[in-house]
Amino acid sequence: MSNGGGAASSTTHLLDFLEEPIPGVGTYDDFHTIDWVREKCKDRERHRKINSKKKESAWEFTKSLYDAWSGWLVVTLTGLASGALAGLIDIAADWMNDLKEGVCLSAMWFNHEQCCWTSNETTFAERDKCPQWKSWAELILGQAEGPGSYIMNYFMYIYWALSFAFLAVCLVKVFAPYACGSGIPEIKTILSGFIIRGYLGKWTLMIKTITLVLAVASGLSLGKEGPLVHVACCCGNIFSYLFPKYSKNEAKKREVLSAASAAGVSVAFGAPIGGVLFSLEEVSYYFPLKTLWRSFFAALVAAFVLRSINPFGNSRLVLFYVEYHTPWYLFELIPFILLGVFGGLWGAFFIRANIAWCRRRKSTRFGKYPLILHLNCIMPPRCLDLWLTSNRLSVNPAGLGVVSDYVYSVYVFSSLTVLSLFAGKYPVLEVILVAAITAVVAFPNPYTRQNTSELIKELFTDCGPLESSQLCKYRSQMNGSTAFTDNPNQPAGPGVYSAMWQLCLALIFKIIMTIFTFGLKVPSGLFIPSMAIGAIAGRIVGIAMEQLAYYHHDWFLFKEWCEVGADCITPGLYAMVGAAACLGGVTRMTVSLVVIVFELTGGLEYIVPLMAAVMTSKWVGDAFGREGIYEAHIRLNGYPFLDAKEEFTHTTLARDVMRPRSSDPPLAVLTQDDLTVEELQGIINETSYNGFPVIVSKESQRLVGFALRRDITIAIENARRKQEGIMFNSRVYFTQHAPTLPADSPRPLKLRSILDMSPFTVTDHTPMEIVVDIFRKLGLRQCLVTHNGNVLGIITKKNILEHLEELKQQTKPLSDGI
Amino acid sequence: MSNGGGAASSTTHLLDFLEEPIPGVGTYDDFHTIDWVREKCKDRERHRKINSKKKESAWEFTKSLYDAWSGWLVVTLTGLASGALAGLIDIAADWMNDLKEGVCLSAMWFNHEQCCWTSNETTFAERDKCPQWKSWAELILGQAEGPGSYIMNYFMYIYWALSFAFLAVCLVKVFAPYACGSGIPEIKTILSGFIIRGYLGKWTLMIKTITLVLAVASGLSLGKEGPLVHVACCCGNIFSYLFPKYSKNEAKKREVLSAASAAGVSVAFGAPIGGVLFSLEEVSYYFPLKTLWRSFFAALVAAFVLRSINPFGNSRLVLFYVEYHTPWYLFELIPFILLGVFGGLWGAFFIRANIAWCRRRKSTRFGKYPLILHLNCIMPPRCLDLWLTSNRLSVNPAGLGVVSDYVYSVYVFSSLTVLSLFAGKYPVLEVILVAAITAVVAFPNPYTRQNTSELIKELFTDCGPLESSQLCKYRSQMNGSTAFTDNPNQPAGPGVYSAMWQLCLALIFKIIMTIFTFGLKVPSGLFIPSMAIGAIAGRIVGIAMEQLAYYHHDWFLFKEWCEVGADCITPGLYAMVGAAACLGGVTRMTVSLVVIVFELTGGLEYIVPLMAAVMTSKWVGDAFGREGIYEAHIRLNGYPFLDAKEEFTHTTLARDVMRPRSSDPPLAVLTQDDLTVEELQGIINETSYNGFPVIVSKESQRLVGFALRRDITIAIENARRKQEGIMFNSRVYFTQHAPTLPADSPRPLKLRSILDMSPFTVTDHTPMEIVVDIFRKLGLRQCLVTHNGNVLGIITKKNILEHLEELKQQTKPLSDGI
Repeated sequence: MSNGGGAASSTTHLLDFLEEPIPGVGTYDDFHTIDWVREKCKDRERHRKINSKKKESAWEFTKSLYDAWSGWLVVTLTGLASGALAGLIDIAADWMNDLKEGVCLSAMWFNHEQCCWTSNETTFAERDKCPQWKSWAELILGQAEGPGSYIMNYFMYIYWALSFAFLAVCLVKVFAPYACGSGIPEIKTILSGFIIRGYLGKWTLMIKTITLVLAVASGLSLGKEGPLVHVACCCGNIFSYLFPKYSKNEAKKREVLSAASAAGVSVAFGAPIGGVLFSLEEVSYYFPLKTLWRSFFAALVAAFVLRSINPFGNSRLVLFYVEYHTPWYLFELIPFILLGVFGGLWGAFFIRANIAWCRRRKSTRFGKYPLILHLNCIMPPRCLDLWLTSNRLSVNPAGLGVVSDYVYSVYVFSSLTVLSLFAGKYPVLEVILVAAITAVVAFPNPYTRQNTSELIKELFTDCGPLESSQLCKYRSQMNGSTAFTDNPNQPAGPGVYSAMWQLCLALIFKIIMTIFTFGLKVPSGLFIPSMAIGAIAGRIVGIAMEQLAYYHHDWFLFKEWCEVGADCITPGLYAMVGAAACLGGVTRMTVSLVVIVFELTGGLEYIVPLMAAVMTSKWVGDAFGREGIYEAHIRLNGYPFLDAKEEFTHTTLARDVMRPRSSDPPLAVLTQDDLTVEELQGIINETSYNGFPVIVSKESQRLVGFALRRDITIAIENARRKQEGIMFNSRVYFTQHAPTLPADSPRPLKLRSILDMSPFTVTDHTPMEIVVDIFRKLGLRQCLVTHNGNVLGIITKKNILEHLEELKQQTKPLSDGI
Repeated sequence: MSNGGGAASSTTHLLDFLEEPIPGVGTYDDFHTIDWVREKCKDRERHRKINSKKKESAWEFTKSLYDAWSGWLVVTLTGLASGALAGLIDIAADWMNDLKEGVCLSAMWFNHEQCCWTSNETTFAERDKCPQWKSWAELILGQAEGPGSYIMNYFMYIYWALSFAFLAVCLVKVFAPYACGSGIPEIKTILSGFIIRGYLGKWTLMIKTITLVLAVASGLSLGKEGPLVHVACCCGNIFSYLFPKYSKNEAKKREVLSAASAAGVSVAFGAPIGGVLFSLEEVSYYFPLKTLWRSFFAALVAAFVLRSINPFGNSRLVLFYVEYHTPWYLFELIPFILLGVFGGLWGAFFIRANIAWCRRRKSTRFGKYPLILHLNCIMPPRCLDLWLTSNRLSVNPAGLGVVSDYVYSVYVFSSLTVLSLFAGKYPVLEVILVAAITAVVAFPNPYTRQNTSELIKELFTDCGPLESSQLCKYRSQMNGSTAFTDNPNQPAGPGVYSAMWQLCLALIFKIIMTIFTFGLKVPSGLFIPSMAIGAIAGRIVGIAMEQLAYYHHDWFLFKEWCEVGADCITPGLYAMVGAAACLGGVTRMTVSLVVIVFELTGGLEYIVPLMAAVMTSKWVGDAFGREGIYEAHIRLNGYPFLDAKEEFTHTTLARDVMRPRSSDPPLAVLTQDDLTVEELQGIINETSYNGFPVIVSKESQRLVGFALRRDITIAIENARRKQEGIMFNSRVYFTQHAPTLPADSPRPLKLRSILDMSPFTVTDHTPMEIVVDIFRKLGLRQCLVTHNGNVLGIITKKNILEHLEELKQQTKPLSDGI
């Protein structure tokens, strides 16, 4: 107890707080980590001020009420905006998606379905065909059937797909580079306490909303669900600027963002509870109970708004809502678990392949590919011929009109040339390329041509009398003839067989394209493609099981449960289980995923199959690497994210991690009362540390406090401008009282107000597992290491991440060997 | 850096770890707090050992696999057991509940419903009446109708109720005192890191299961939902003893208990997701994601088992599952919010009244009441007369048979005498009294006589053609006559009016009795009575709204939404909203409650009304006091529970809370190398601290580490027994190397292995809000306070709780004034 201390300094300490704060102290630079503890203290301080003032006047009381309710207000606004934007995106994407196929003559702004609603002439079976809706071939060539019109439709499909993709990537590149990707890895990082300015700003919001519609409509293998979370978080961030409580406090702002991400998932999947759990399980870092309630509220409001907008006209929040009516049987757990294994394998494969591709993209920047492609496409007929032969097998056998051939090749050539000239860099070209390949390959196969949501809906839905899908063309076995029936659990008809083939091709196509699509410079979600892949695989397994049960109904397994002709296997359920398994394999979510899917079906009944598949998928995936796709992308981008899920299992101690290492120069420390301004600036300029421990004296390294570099710089600047008599040789002191100085010395500079008097310390013997735990749970930025009360070193979040990476490298040969 | 330090000691430190551990070190006494950090470190150490061994042999590899899967195994077992026990309890309680009314002649073990299933003669309308089922009057007096048989039934009802209650309380008192109450406050405390040995043991499990059935069947105003959580936690605890990973680690064991409590709620309400959220929001303290997954799994398994048992014969998990088919309208939010206000008021009132009563019970122990009652009942006819006159108004007007009068009075007299003699203490008498009053008052009113779950079901269910309830006797308005119809949204018939009166009486009765029942020495849950109160209030409001809409269908509100004769108000929905609001007011749960009720209805549709009511109820309740009933009971019982929900808003610093206070004697510290065994024991005997800081020397108070009292005592004992040459004047040292001693001194005792080298420290200037945060998030037991590296004092969890209590007392006049 050498200096200060005792009860007396408590009041003086409080007086220090009341001193006018130095502007700028306590803010953060871009790409820096926030200090949760400090932010939370700041908020409580603010809260106390308001509370103490509120009895002064009615106005202050109103202000305090407003402050207390602002949390609910901001999540309500966020929910409203997210719901409205989601509705808008759904409607716009639907319309633009149908634009690829044709146009509604009676009203341009109707999509295919709405166009045909107004038509009275159609029967139920042909609800998709109506005179008002014209395909492009009908419109341009005047004929609906025949090879020419097929080519024309094909061409227009590619034309629109490329236009949308081009527009999307250009908008992203020019206006808001942060609008690309799914955004979830970055949001995870931001929520864990990192600052990325502009990532959740109004430009990002605007451009992401527009380009998301374009990207989805372009037919690329991507979904809108992940980006919707980003959009919702942008809304949350923008609205939080209306309330000083949230705009001025990075920790509080993150509470709003957690709620916003719940609202995003809520509207993406129509699953408010699933959204909250997603926010809790996957995204959030700091999740107090208050945030749980507000997340739930935001999710509900958003879902409610979306349902009022009713974008799909079925009073459901998502296109692929289903209800099943048949139970499942215990033996079906075997195929469900197999689907889980498939999901896990797919997830592990996808993560590796996608990360490898993204790493390649990062390093090579498509150095020489565009030129080759360009040269190749200078000879349009050859290039086109090449493409078409490779696709002709799956196309209706048809010749090519010379006109369309010419138009097509000119289009490809000119657009590519313009692109390379205009864009200058290659991300744009890459998007166009991927979009072109996707469009060219996707069109001939009905399962890849249609909207992915619609595909999922078709795969999830059970065959019934109202289904006109190819998947439901079963042979009737009543009369033994080849008449077709839509009753499942019958022998499969040729419709089902051809559908199976097309599904297999679609599966391969989706698997390949998704790997190259995720990470493009357009908004791109991963949920829908993953679910589509799983749903295709699941449906295939489901139909196989169904046929197995039909042809071998005397097997002991089927005998017990399946009567002949009875509805015992539900292929749609297999599709749903497969979808959950694949999504689980990629993201490694479990509970939130099961709840999301549960909310899609609304039946407790199917939770056990889902859970079995999702857990299997997680376990299988984890065997190949514990990271989900979002963590992998976070690591790829080098964000400072300390994963709360991964357990630290090594035996290192704090002193093995702390800086300075034994080979480094000694730790830069400040003494509490014998530095001059010049010396202090010297230390700051020589080092690049973000902060400095303040010690008693050179002789006794006992810790007094911690001062941040940014705060010191700002404080000195401020003192120079405002306080007279501060010179280079002014003494700087962090103590309560000014040190006794020689008579002729200049006025000293008191910096106690920027001194953190309660820095976190651990002893050098503290196991790193505890240190990591402290960093995770308290959200620290740095922590001092002491030995018997003396300062030895410092550990920052970055040091810990580096240490984890090192340990990972050391143990890699082992874990890869599994 | 005076001693040790440097890289060399790292290996020696590890060697210390490998020294044989002293048995008993690292365990806890009963009613002590665990150290989460230490427990987690222990578990990681164990994990590392297994991991390093697993490559040695196939056997070790199998062991490591078993270890990795034991977590899933134990939650599976817990889920299975909880589901099975819940099914058992449901079936047994149902049977015994019907025993109060009569008996099934064809098969004694059938309850009323099952008895009449086997009968073929009954029509649907009279499904409750069948020749096999005999009421007690029929059986004993041979007549089913008439005043005599009414009295006989009344008497037998009371007889069974008292017998069940008596048996229950005696079993609890004699075999397992911990089996009483709901158990949730204690489980919350245990999960926060407190040790109560035997609270979750096999005796408690057995007795709680049996007495829960008895208590529910006795007709007391209590539910089985809370105790089911206790039962599930007992299962979890018992199964965790099969796995050393969980039995030997208090922190890991609590993970299992969290999962078990989720399973408990899952079977209590048939709501697996709600159960997980309940565990997360209400019960758990430390809830890592792994626990989330396992909780979900346990909840699912339990629900699955219960559904396989199918105790209610409706393939649902709970009796009161409902489905609504009509939507709600925006203006209905007004009555829903009013129900929320009612729920909040009821909750606040209930908590105050119940706590006041429990405090009285604790302090007076029913000092003089039993004698007065006893004397009163010595004169049986008078006493009986008194009771009957007070109840006759609501009884069918009827005379009394002399025989039953006599039997009745003898019974009351003798049972009370036996009780007072046998029990000796008054809890038993209190239970009997409350049970007697409940039974006497409950019988005449059909809504209180029936099982509370059945009542809730009846109130939740909408009127339809299949409903035979009084509540659905509407007047048909088609022909204008007084013919009755079961179609709602009609003028209410006399059946509805009389039902309304009875419901009002039931409401008052339930409100009063629940206050006195919760806290009795029998297993007693609060969920069902609270829900019943809310459901009654809600149904009353619902019917009122319905009649309002009928008679004023030209009001602008109703005009827009309600057509005449259409189904626009659903009174059952009001009952459900009211139930959620009341339960929310009492427990202050929000999200988990909404999810539980959502799972009961299975419709996203009704989440907004529920949310509105539940949030209103929480806000209204919080205005009168922020504690829920469980926190209030925790505080009443003085458990060391640091609530994670309440925010610390004061400006005190660590030095204001730390011990020793300025008036106290200085802190008892140990020096690292100059104490003798005798001195050490002296310090231990003179003080009652649980642990002591170890410092460098008397001169320099710099902190080296922390040693626990229990560990020191055990270590000295152990050294005396095992190590030769340890005398009273042996030097004790905590350093790495033995100090240099005079030649003739006895062998020194090295205690470094029990020294915690990484104690948590905060500076004296640390705001208490940060300290509280650290304690909560890291689960600390104590924390040392330093100033400039010197030890100043210590803060324990108890100190913090005392400090919080002090602050509460100071601010009480203010907050009470709101």
